[in-house]
Amino acid sequence: MPPTGLTAGTPLATLNHLAARLRILSVRSTTEAGSGHPTSCCSAADIVAVLFFSVMRFNPKNPKHPNNDRFVLSKGHAAPLLYAAWAEAGAFNPDDLLRLRTLESDLEGHPTPRLNFVDVATGSLGQGLNAGIGLALNARLDQSNYRTYVLMGDGESMEGSIWEAAEIARHLKLDNLCAIVDVNRQGQSDPTILQHDMEAYRARWSAFGWNALVVDGHDTAALLNAFEQAGQTKGKPTVLLARTLKGKGISFAEDKPDWHGKAFKKGEEADKALAELSARLLPSPPKVEIRLPDPPAKAPAAARPVAPPEYQPSDSVATREAFGATLVKLGEANPKVVALDADVKNSTFTDKFGKKFPDRFFETFIAEQNMIGAGVGLASQGKIPFVATFAAFLTRAYDFIRMAAISKTNLKLMGSHVGVSIGEDGPSQMGLEDLAMMAAQPGVAVLYPSDAVCTHWLTALAADHQGMVYIRTGRPKTPILYKNDEQFTIGGSKVLRESAKDKLTVVAAGVTLFEALKAHDELAKQGIAIRVVDLYSIVPIDRATLLASARATNNLMLTVEDHYAHGGIGDAVTAAVNADGVKVHKMAVTEIPHSGKPDQLLDRYGLSARHIVEKVKKLIS
Amino acid sequence: MPPTGLTAGTPLATLNHLAARLRILSVRSTTEAGSGHPTSCCSAADIVAVLFFSVMRFNPKNPKHPNNDRFVLSKGHAAPLLYAAWAEAGAFNPDDLLRLRTLESDLEGHPTPRLNFVDVATGSLGQGLNAGIGLALNARLDQSNYRTYVLMGDGESMEGSIWEAAEIARHLKLDNLCAIVDVNRQGQSDPTILQHDMEAYRARWSAFGWNALVVDGHDTAALLNAFEQAGQTKGKPTVLLARTLKGKGISFAEDKPDWHGKAFKKGEEADKALAELSARLLPSPPKVEIRLPDPPAKAPAAARPVAPPEYQPSDSVATREAFGATLVKLGEANPKVVALDADVKNSTFTDKFGKKFPDRFFETFIAEQNMIGAGVGLASQGKIPFVATFAAFLTRAYDFIRMAAISKTNLKLMGSHVGVSIGEDGPSQMGLEDLAMMAAQPGVAVLYPSDAVCTHWLTALAADHQGMVYIRTGRPKTPILYKNDEQFTIGGSKVLRESAKDKLTVVAAGVTLFEALKAHDELAKQGIAIRVVDLYSIVPIDRATLLASARATNNLMLTVEDHYAHGGIGDAVTAAVNADGVKVHKMAVTEIPHSGKPDQLLDRYGLSARHIVEKVKKLIS
Repeated sequence: MPPTGLTAGTPLATLNHLAARLRILSVRSTTEAGSGHPTSCCSAADIVAVLFFSVMRFNPKNPKHPNNDRFVLSKGHAAPLLYAAWAEAGAFNPDDLLRLRTLESDLEGHPTPRLNFVDVATGSLGQGLNAGIGLALNARLDQSNYRTYVLMGDGESMEGSIWEAAEIARHLKLDNLCAIVDVNRQGQSDPTILQHDMEAYRARWSAFGWNALVVDGHDTAALLNAFEQAGQTKGKPTVLLARTLKGKGISFAEDKPDWHGKAFKKGEEADKALAELSARLLPSPPKVEIRLPDPPAKAPAAARPVAPPEYQPSDSVATREAFGATLVKLGEANPKVVALDADVKNSTFTDKFGKKFPDRFFETFIAEQNMIGAGVGLASQGKIPFVATFAAFLTRAYDFIRMAAISKTNLKLMGSHVGVSIGEDGPSQMGLEDLAMMAAQPGVAVLYPSDAVCTHWLTALAADHQGMVYIRTGRPKTPILYKNDEQFTIGGSKVLRESAKDKLTVVAAGVTLFEALKAHDELAKQGIAIRVVDLYSIVPIDRATLLASARATNNLMLTVEDHYAHGGIGDAVTAAVNADGVKVHKMAVTEIPHSGKPDQLLDRYGLSARHIVEKVKKLIS
Repeated sequence: MPPTGLTAGTPLATLNHLAARLRILSVRSTTEAGSGHPTSCCSAADIVAVLFFSVMRFNPKNPKHPNNDRFVLSKGHAAPLLYAAWAEAGAFNPDDLLRLRTLESDLEGHPTPRLNFVDVATGSLGQGLNAGIGLALNARLDQSNYRTYVLMGDGESMEGSIWEAAEIARHLKLDNLCAIVDVNRQGQSDPTILQHDMEAYRARWSAFGWNALVVDGHDTAALLNAFEQAGQTKGKPTVLLARTLKGKGISFAEDKPDWHGKAFKKGEEADKALAELSARLLPSPPKVEIRLPDPPAKAPAAARPVAPPEYQPSDSVATREAFGATLVKLGEANPKVVALDADVKNSTFTDKFGKKFPDRFFETFIAEQNMIGAGVGLASQGKIPFVATFAAFLTRAYDFIRMAAISKTNLKLMGSHVGVSIGEDGPSQMGLEDLAMMAAQPGVAVLYPSDAVCTHWLTALAADHQGMVYIRTGRPKTPILYKNDEQFTIGGSKVLRESAKDKLTVVAAGVTLFEALKAHDELAKQGIAIRVVDLYSIVPIDRATLLASARATNNLMLTVEDHYAHGGIGDAVTAAVNADGVKVHKMAVTEIPHSGKPDQLLDRYGLSARHIVEKVKKLIS
């Protein structure tokens, strides 16, 4: 019998009954849907039953309770099991499970936060533990005693992001974090790489500094014991390595290779499975009591307005540096603001925030996927996390960013060192596809300030904005364009140069905006007037101003950007005004760039004032 | 004294002299450039000296020799050290090193294959070992005895991609692969997470099944011994965990935290560093002999033309399935074609290739970054690797794809299960940003076949094309559009419906092309003629046909795509014809989609024939 200090005294017979119920509901719902992963649910049903009905403390009627223990289903394809557990716990009517995977129900194929009991979307494997780190850090920040459980599959143990999380969780001594690996040994197309070599799993997790417990994942008493040990282990996270069988409880599918991702067919097949599972139910349904969480502590202090910037007109400041300065002010104004770094804090200037607010700053080392995943976890609990690295290295975490967009997260991303204007370090360090990848995701605001004042206000607006925001910053110092009290909006733009005689509108942001301003002056000397627009918000885009500018300049526009040609400013502007008959010409980077001096490269790749002057003259002739 | 069976008998004094030379050249070149990472070169100089001048067999005058031992500098910021080693070995004049990081020299800030001795671009950390797996597999395929050495940093050991590689290399028993971790304990902004805890490193690598040797990275005798052991170890890869000091040999920088990424200033600072390093040189330069590789074996059989497809007009075939069928034919026609999978081979249909050509098929499990990295390594040695997974999961490897583009690799990517038309699995499994991310990269051909015949020919063309190719495929079965002998080209398109009275051109590909054809028929019933173009090549794009179609249809176009609105077909078409005064309207997915039935979802997100009909009528009214 298990000890009961940290777990409820739920009888094992009840837990086994509940595990059978979860299997039955998983089979029923997937059979009704005609698709899904019932066998992946069956391997983990005992683990989930023990967690939900004896180990975890949570209020099923209030999944957002701040002191609820958190559960992340990293193996998102076992969604029906998750749904069954919440339904069985009383969160909603189990009959709703039969609408699984339909357009009419938010019980989707993989879990998303459209459901109030899902903190982060899963379904792309190997992301749950990273989010779990964010959840565990949040408990520490809030001095809450909630614990975080992450259920992973064995197949996804191959994803490197899990080992990023393993190393960081050990380093952060997250003893409020407990991972479970459902080692059912069957992948989608083949047995998993380690199959049932439980000692190999133990060796890996132990070597990464975890309390690693090998357990029979179908033995509820053993599981209770292991969770008890996990709760008592201090100074390190615990992982339960649970040996299981895929399709457990269904004789013709159990441990069989050909049953991945297949619903049992209605009729004989499903009936046989359900009959076998039902044989494990108690004659009459047992009473189940969920252990409730502690009442919430007092709410954190409200946010104050952020202090305005204090730049001088003669200053020259890199936008990445202005971002760092504002982040400190945001930290002072809003206790929910936190920041994460991947060992570039002295390049993105988040080090200033880290020095001022060490408790709210997390050095997560060179592991960008984990940084984003942890940020998403923190955001799911009401924090406002800023994650910053070179824009080029955000590509490393694009799947995490994609899933963050599906989660409709409140994460704020900053990508620095964009474009060829970084110079000598060469193409591997140049962010040249960041606008394409960020703007593609629905619901992400994409901002690109050119001077320090604009950076300040956009960073402040980002914190207040509900939803994901991307801020693009540059490496070189740039002049001040705006007064400290200039007004900016997400979705706005600024017309910096205009006259009644303008022949064409140049749209730019970042270093190319300054090239456009130089071109404006050079063209003015030659008697040619152009309009210049600072497009500091790419998504949403200020269509009205763009269109008005185009109308005033012969419906002729030229975009100039330190970004590859596809998916950047040029395409965003074109998409906004093309259908109104405006002709938009693009200047952008069209080949893999070379190392060199920033000004040399801007010129080599056709983005310098000289090239803009030439292009304008050609277009208006 | 080291054994000399596998290494040259180069005296230790000579190796120490050469290590000093490499340090001196690294300092000189970075000082002249005014930027770079000399201290990161100094920590690894002894390792590189031992490798290049005693362990490795290669022809410095012929870096492409097929039997050369391969060296990958995963810590790409130590590029000056790599360049110094090749110069010192005789590949080029050491004076050229003083043009480091200039636009005039290919000795860039981080290594790229613009240099003939660089197989794969590095500089985004944690990618070298993945490429190394490809190099080691290539040796096995070609029955060559060359060995692959990958020099990594300790900071990058945090990147999960390294642990993906570690697991796979063990599984594949790659004893011809040797990794070296330069554990200099200093990161960019902080000490590394494990600093000099060499036992922690040993525990992790041993647990992952490697022969893990802890060694003093500045002791040339110890290094020789360790490389000797590595060469004698069978059945598993070896890692040398080399304890080093950053800035080794320069007293004022050695093991100091503030010297990351800083060149020594010309004058007193650099002079002092160079004086200290020069003191370690032998009085007169020793004679160095590089060990040459075995002569090349005979070339593989030449490729034959691929067999044509044999589809019936009445067939209904998913494009992913047609891809798999063609891959088998390609395997028969061309011995250089290989394929890699990440446990979805029964969904992408690469399992057919795997069954037919088990030696040329690599199951690399659920680790997409490693799959792409290994593919890049194979491609660098002349193989034609096809890597296939769900398009959504290619986002996982976007940094690897970005670096592959910088390498100008000959990799072929297939992304399946695109768009909302996958149905019930929901948004986490839907590739909806793949066109944006692939088309952003210069030099990538982006193809999107709609039927099995087109898929066949585009897959065959992809194999012949020099450069990276992306093929987008769908989950649902689709009808046959073309005769088996139809001609396709990369950069082409097909006008499927046209008449003299067409009011508008609809451009589509994939499932939406069939919706467009349905809309065409429905509109025809209502007396409205439209043109329909199959845009099977997004990059390069068939501007001439698009423009001609637009000209014939009132300069009015409508794009319809199962992809997010930014960076997809609509933007590509608009960018191609907008400046010619064509108005392009877009229909695409504009929000995070929901689970549901494929047809329901196409309708819900505005991509069905019904919506196209409505839109066309609105646009032409």
